[in-house]
Amino acid sequence: MARLTDIGWNEFHALPLEAKRPYLERVEGGGMPYHTLFAQQFDRPILERLCALANRIRFINKSKEGALYLKSVLAHKRAMLYFSQPSSRTFLSHLAACQILGVTTGSVRDAATSSEFKGESHEDSIRTFSSYFDMIIMRSPEQGLAEKMSWELSNSSRPIPILNAGSGKDQHPTQALLDIYTLFRSFENKGGIDGKTVVFCGDLMRGRTVRSLSYLLTNFKDVRQVFVAPQELRVPDDVIAVLEEKGVDFKVSDDLQAAVRTADAVYMTRIQDEWDESKGASAKIDTSRFKFGAEELKLLPADGIIMHPLPRRDEIATCCDHDPRAMYWRQMRNGMWIRAALIASTFGFEKSIMECGY
Amino acid sequence: MARLTDIGWNEFHALPLEAKRPYLERVEGGGMPYHTLFAQQFDRPILERLCALANRIRFINKSKEGALYLKSVLAHKRAMLYFSQPSSRTFLSHLAACQILGVTTGSVRDAATSSEFKGESHEDSIRTFSSYFDMIIMRSPEQGLAEKMSWELSNSSRPIPILNAGSGKDQHPTQALLDIYTLFRSFENKGGIDGKTVVFCGDLMRGRTVRSLSYLLTNFKDVRQVFVAPQELRVPDDVIAVLEEKGVDFKVSDDLQAAVRTADAVYMTRIQDEWDESKGASAKIDTSRFKFGAEELKLLPADGIIMHPLPRRDEIATCCDHDPRAMYWRQMRNGMWIRAALIASTFGFEKSIMECGY
Amino acid sequence: MARLTDIGWNEFHALPLEAKRPYLERVEGGGMPYHTLFAQQFDRPILERLCALANRIRFINKSKEGALYLKSVLAHKRAMLYFSQPSSRTFLSHLAACQILGVTTGSVRDAATSSEFKGESHEDSIRTFSSYFDMIIMRSPEQGLAEKMSWELSNSSRPIPILNAGSGKDQHPTQALLDIYTLFRSFENKGGIDGKTVVFCGDLMRGRTVRSLSYLLTNFKDVRQVFVAPQELRVPDDVIAVLEEKGVDFKVSDDLQAAVRTADAVYMTRIQDEWDESKGASAKIDTSRFKFGAEELKLLPADGIIMHPLPRRDEIATCCDHDPRAMYWRQMRNGMWIRAALIASTFGFEKSIMECGY
Repeated sequence: MARLTDIGWNEFHALPLEAKRPYLERVEGGGMPYHTLFAQQFDRPILERLCALANRIRFINKSKEGALYLKSVLAHKRAMLYFSQPSSRTFLSHLAACQILGVTTGSVRDAATSSEFKGESHEDSIRTFSSYFDMIIMRSPEQGLAEKMSWELSNSSRPIPILNAGSGKDQHPTQALLDIYTLFRSFENKGGIDGKTVVFCGDLMRGRTVRSLSYLLTNFKDVRQVFVAPQELRVPDDVIAVLEEKGVDFKVSDDLQAAVRTADAVYMTRIQDEWDESKGASAKIDTSRFKFGAEELKLLPADGIIMHPLPRRDEIATCCDHDPRAMYWRQMRNGMWIRAALIASTFGFEKSIMECGY
Repeated sequence: MARLTDIGWNEFHALPLEAKRPYLERVEGGGMPYHTLFAQQFDRPILERLCALANRIRFINKSKEGALYLKSVLAHKRAMLYFSQPSSRTFLSHLAACQILGVTTGSVRDAATSSEFKGESHEDSIRTFSSYFDMIIMRSPEQGLAEKMSWELSNSSRPIPILNAGSGKDQHPTQALLDIYTLFRSFENKGGIDGKTVVFCGDLMRGRTVRSLSYLLTNFKDVRQVFVAPQELRVPDDVIAVLEEKGVDFKVSDDLQAAVRTADAVYMTRIQDEWDESKGASAKIDTSRFKFGAEELKLLPADGIIMHPLPRRDEIATCCDHDPRAMYWRQMRNGMWIRAALIASTFGFEKSIMECGY
Repeated sequence: MARLTDIGWNEFHALPLEAKRPYLERVEGGGMPYHTLFAQQFDRPILERLCALANRIRFINKSKEGALYLKSVLAHKRAMLYFSQPSSRTFLSHLAACQILGVTTGSVRDAATSSEFKGESHEDSIRTFSSYFDMIIMRSPEQGLAEKMSWELSNSSRPIPILNAGSGKDQHPTQALLDIYTLFRSFENKGGIDGKTVVFCGDLMRGRTVRSLSYLLTNFKDVRQVFVAPQELRVPDDVIAVLEEKGVDFKVSDDLQAAVRTADAVYMTRIQDEWDESKGASAKIDTSRFKFGAEELKLLPADGIIMHPLPRRDEIATCCDHDPRAMYWRQMRNGMWIRAALIASTFGFEKSIMECGY
C-alpha cells in the first residue's frame, strides 16, 4: 500500500482509479479499504472477505446474546452521516449498519444545510464534522468531494475514514457491494457466482448500479452478461469496452422474455427520468417490453432470482412480490449486512468478528 | 386468536373492527396486541395489564440500576419511526419510550419524504424500512395505511409489528391509552375509574381523542360521561349511539361550570380549526363559555383532575398550570410510560419486566 | 446559593446578571451551574474546574475501556436538543458531548417546528419536552427564552436543567467556554492564560463570541487584549467600558500585522453581514487589511496560536490550515470536550469522573 500523506492532492487526483486504490487501503488490512470511494477498490478476494464477514454478522445477530456482542464491537466509535443529497433509503441502511455494531451516530440530512453554513466551503464543513466523529459517511451531489475529503483528512491532525454513500452520477460503491452480496448469498449453495448468467434490463444508460455491478462481475469466472434495453437507453459504450477488453461473454438485446429463460439473475432497473435532458423525454420511449410481470415470472428458471436496486415504479409487477425468487426486499437487507461488514473492517474488526465465539 | 397469513387482504379489510382484533394479537400474548392499530383492540383486561406494566416500568426507572436494566430489555431491537405526517410531540414520546427500553431508533420525519422516493408507493417504502428494523412506528395522513402494512408485513418473509401513531382522522390508539393511564393513576387509590364522572369540553365534534376515550371508558363500570360543547361542535351522533347501546349514563350540556362541580375529571380540548370546511368558520363560534380558568378551578372538587391532550391554546388559563389537580403535563409523561409498556409487551417482555427484581 | 423556587419570575428577571448567578447553581455543586444561561456564570475557579474535567474526559476517552466507562456515566439520562434556530455545527457538538457520556438524545432541529405546534406557546412546547427528557439543550432566536424556561421548570413538578446553546444576539455561553478551554490547553505548559496577549480581529461590533471571550479573559491576570477592526466594525463601547472598569490593559488598532507580532493568540472573526441593517452594507467596507494569510503566518511568534469560531469565509487563508499553530479545528473539538464536562458536572458527576481509575 501507499499513503495519502506521501502524495500531493493534485498528483493523487490525476491518478487512474486502479493506481489510487493502494492509497486508500487500511494499514495492515491486507487490501481492505480505509477510505471507501469507488467500486474499483473491490477485487475478488476483498469481495469474498466482505461477503464472508457479512454472513458472519448476519448469523451472530440472530440471537440476543450475539446482537449484544455485535453492539459492543464499535461501541466506542461515533459516525457522522452527512447526506447533503437526501436519500432516506441509503441513509437508513447505513444507519442500521452502524447501529448493529454499536456505532453512535449523528446526522445532517438536509439539502439546505450548505446554505446554513454562512458561506463556508464543503471542505470546512466536513473538517468540522471530523472534529466530532470517528468516521464520515457522506452522500453528496458534488462529484469527487469524497475523494478530496479523504486526502484532506488523511493529511490533517485528525485522520478519520470516509465512506462514500453516493457522489453525483459518479460512484456508489456500497450499492455495488450489496448487489454482489445478494448474488453471493443466492448462489452460495449453487456453485457460487462463477458461470452464472446475469440479465440487466431497463434504463441501462443512466444510473450507477448497472455500471458498477457489471464491472464487479468481471472479477468472477465465466459470468455471462445480457443487456436488455430500449434503443434509447442501451448500455453505454464504455461499459461494453471494459467487457470486451476483459474477454467477458456478453450480449445486447431487446428481448426480455428470451433473456429471462436463460437467466440466473434478472436485474431490473427504473427509468431514471430525473436525468432527462428535456423534460418528459423518457415518457416518449416505449418501455412496455422492458417490464417484469406474471409472464416473465413463468419463464424464469426455478433457481433464478429477481433483483432491483429500488425504488421501483412499474418495472416489476407487485404480483411478483410474494414469489420466493423475488430477491429485491432481501437485497435491501443485504445492504445493511454488507455495510456493517465494511464498517467493521474499516475499523479493523474483521478478524475479531470472524473468530468470536458466537 | 387468528392469523393474518390465513386471510386475504380484501377479506380482512372488510371485517368490522371487533372481528379484526384477534388477527392482530400476539401469539401466546393472551390478547395483547402484536400490531397496534385502533383503540378497539383494548378491552378492560388488556388496559389493566398495560397500566400495571407502565406503573412497573415507571417505578423501575427511578433508580440508575433500574434504568439500566430497562435499557437492556430491548437492546437487541431497532425501531423505525416513520412520521410522514410530522408531529414532534408524538414523535418524541414514542422515541423516549423506545429509549427507555434500549430500543435503537431510526427516523423519517419529513412530510416531503414521499416525493423523495421517486414515484415509489408507500407500501414499497414501508417494506424497505422493514428490511432494516424490527418494528415500525408510523404516523400517516393516509387512513388505513397502517392496517394495510400490518397485513403486508405479516404476509412477507420479514413479519415485524406495526404501531399506529396516528392515521388521518382515523385512529390514534396510544393517545387513548395515555388518557386511560392518566385516569388509572389519578384514581389508583380512590376506587379506580369505576363510578367516576368524566366531563369532556370543547370541540367534541372533531379530533380523535374524545371519540376514543369515550369508547374506552365503556369498558369500566358506571362511568358517567358529560359532553359540554358549543352547539356547532357538539359530540357526534355515532359516539352517542355507542353509549346508548351500551347503556352508559351520559349527558349533553352547554354549562361547563355546572359540569365541573360534579366532575372527577375534566377533559378539555382545543378548537380544531385546521379541519374547518370554510376558512375561519371556527372563529365565528362563541367558545368563551367553554374555557377552564380561575373560576372553574374553584368549582372543581378537591380530588378532581384537569386533562388536556395538548397542544392547548387558551382553553385552559395558565394560572391553572401550577395547581396540583392540573394533570396535563403528567398526562404527557404518562404517554411515554404507557407506550413503553405497549412496546415491551409487543416484543413479549411483559412478564419478565413484571417479575424482575427491581 | 439561592433557589429559583424562592423568587417570582418578574423579580428574578429584573436582577442584574451577577445577582442571577447564585439562583442557577447546582445544590452542593460548589458554584457549578445547574442551568447554564450566560457566560457571566463562569468565574475563574469554575472555568478551571471545567477545563480540568474536560482534560480528564479527553484523556479517558483515548482507550476503548475509558470510552465505554464514560458512556456508562450518564447512560440513565436522556437529553432533548431543541434547536428552533438551526445550527448543525453547534447541534453536532452538543450531540457528540452527550454521546460521549452515554446520554441518549432526542431532537427538534426544524425552524418551522413552532408553526407545527398549532398555536402552542414556546413555554408549553418546552414543558412538553421536559416530560420526556432529563435535560433540555436549547437554541432559540428568542432572547431570554432559556432564562424563562429555567425559572418555569424549576418551579414545576419536573425540574430539569436547561443548557443555553445560543439565544438570539444575546448569549452563547458554551462558545465562550470552548474558547477559554482552547487557550487553557494551548498555554497549559507555557504558564497558563495569565499574562498573555490576545488579539481580536475582524467584525468586533457584532456577534457574541468576542464580547463573551473578552469578558471571561478578565478573570485572568494581566491578559492584554488588542482589538483590530475596520472603523465601521470596531469593538463596542460597552465592552471597552468593562475593560476600563476592571483595569485591563487593552488597545484598539487597525494594524493587524503589528498586532500579530506581539500576539500569543490571534482570534479571527467573520464579517457578520447577516446583521446588516441595509442589505450589502458590509460589502462596502474595506476588510482587506483584516485577513490572516501567509504574510501574517510569518509574523506570528512560534508559540502563538490562531483561533476562529468558524464558519470562516476568507478571513484565514487555507494555506494556514496545515500549520501547527492553526488551532481552529482543534477549537471545534475542544467545544465537544468542554460541553461534555459541563453536562457531566450539571448532573453531579464531576467528582466521580475526576477520581475514576481510568
